[in-house]
Amino acid sequence: MWATTTAVSWKTLGLASLLLALGLEGVTRLLLFVLRGRQQRRSSASEVLFFPAPPTCTEALLRPSRPLPCACGLPHTESSLSRLMLRLLSARRSLELCIFSFSNPQLARTVLLLHRRGVRVRLIADSDYMAVKGSQVGVLRKAGIAVRHDQHIGYMHHKFAVVDKTVLITGSLNWTTQAIQTNRENILILEDVTVVKAFMEEFERIWQEYDPSTYEFFPAKK
Amino acid sequence: MWATTTAVSWKTLGLASLLLALGLEGVTRLLLFVLRGRQQRRSSASEVLFFPAPPTCTEALLRPSRPLPCACGLPHTESSLSRLMLRLLSARRSLELCIFSFSNPQLARTVLLLHRRGVRVRLIADSDYMAVKGSQVGVLRKAGIAVRHDQHIGYMHHKFAVVDKTVLITGSLNWTTQAIQTNRENILILEDVTVVKAFMEEFERIWQEYDPSTYEFFPAKK
Repeated sequence: MWATTTAVSWKTLGLASLLLALGLEGVTRLLLFVLRGRQQRRSSASEVLFFPAPPTCTEALLRPSRPLPCACGLPHTESSLSRLMLRLLSARRSLELCIFSFSNPQLARTVLLLHRRGVRVRLIADSDYMAVKGSQVGVLRKAGIAVRHDQHIGYMHHKFAVVDKTVLITGSLNWTTQAIQTNRENILILEDVTVVKAFMEEFERIWQEYDPSTYEFFPAKK
Repeated sequence: MWATTTAVSWKTLGLASLLLALGLEGVTRLLLFVLRGRQQRRSSASEVLFFPAPPTCTEALLRPSRPLPCACGLPHTESSLSRLMLRLLSARRSLELCIFSFSNPQLARTVLLLHRRGVRVRLIADSDYMAVKGSQVGVLRKAGIAVRHDQHIGYMHHKFAVVDKTVLITGSLNWTTQAIQTNRENILILEDVTVVKAFMEEFERIWQEYDPSTYEFFPAKK
């Protein structure tokens, strides 16, 4: 009788412990699976681009419907500019742009392409630099893209973009051909939720502050 | 006999399972502890600072040995500038600086303080902007800090710092008082190993390229 009772209690304990062990192993495996997935998403998400980037042909990105390769003499290789364009072209719903100086035609065509595809584009510019020769801000505005600008003595010196409210593209690079092809510059691409949220909040703050209804006709000169 | 054998085998199974369960639980707890620690380090690691920042007193950071509070009329509150200075002052071994325009006296004093504490400071500057009125590059150089600069037509337009080879400080902000107090600017502080590594490699690449032994006396004008 004692042996049977002992056997039963050991049996219960054994089964319970086995279930516990299996349960915990399951939890551990699930935990590791989820965390590994998160880590992979993290590492694939962040990217660093450095400039100057040598001129390359980006027509394949801007005219994806044309099957024939472009006949221009430029190299048809990847560059920091084409990587940047690819990241922008991944936008499906929204693109927030907060760019101090924007005169590069390829990046303007990238933004126009997204606008035509139905992506909601909003652009914040600096009032001085949007008026310089070669600026693409007027071109984008004429195409129907919403543009707002500062009226301050200081510069709106940000150079960042947010793709689909999830990907931040930021750095030292102004969106000018000189900066892309001649300067030492950096671009950092991140999907960190907290960082993206902070930049989106800054965008919305500026967007509200630069509401055209608050514009003065003769503001203090810079 | 059967009962005893069964009891023994159930006992063995029970004990083995219990040990397995406890072992797995231990592993799980250890795993969670480590991961939680890493997450906490991560979340405390990334920080976003926006400018303009109103002028505040930063003497307490620059003269930590003086017990009395500064009698200046400025607010003694935290600001984006003081947060940036705190991050720089956390350096114990090395500080790499790659700054397009550096004229803010408080940031120059921060760097000088680190230099005096024995932190190995290296500064890469832009040849045009290091020569403008108010530039702090000459002051730092005279104090014995190693400075290198470009000789190119393009600008050395980066504005980043790496603290102890582990913390990246980057963004749109030039280290000038105008940018800090007047412009819309951002600073992103990250401890992401891959990102920091990419910026450190860029620093070393430029540092080698701008070796004084390769300087020409009459380079092409910008």
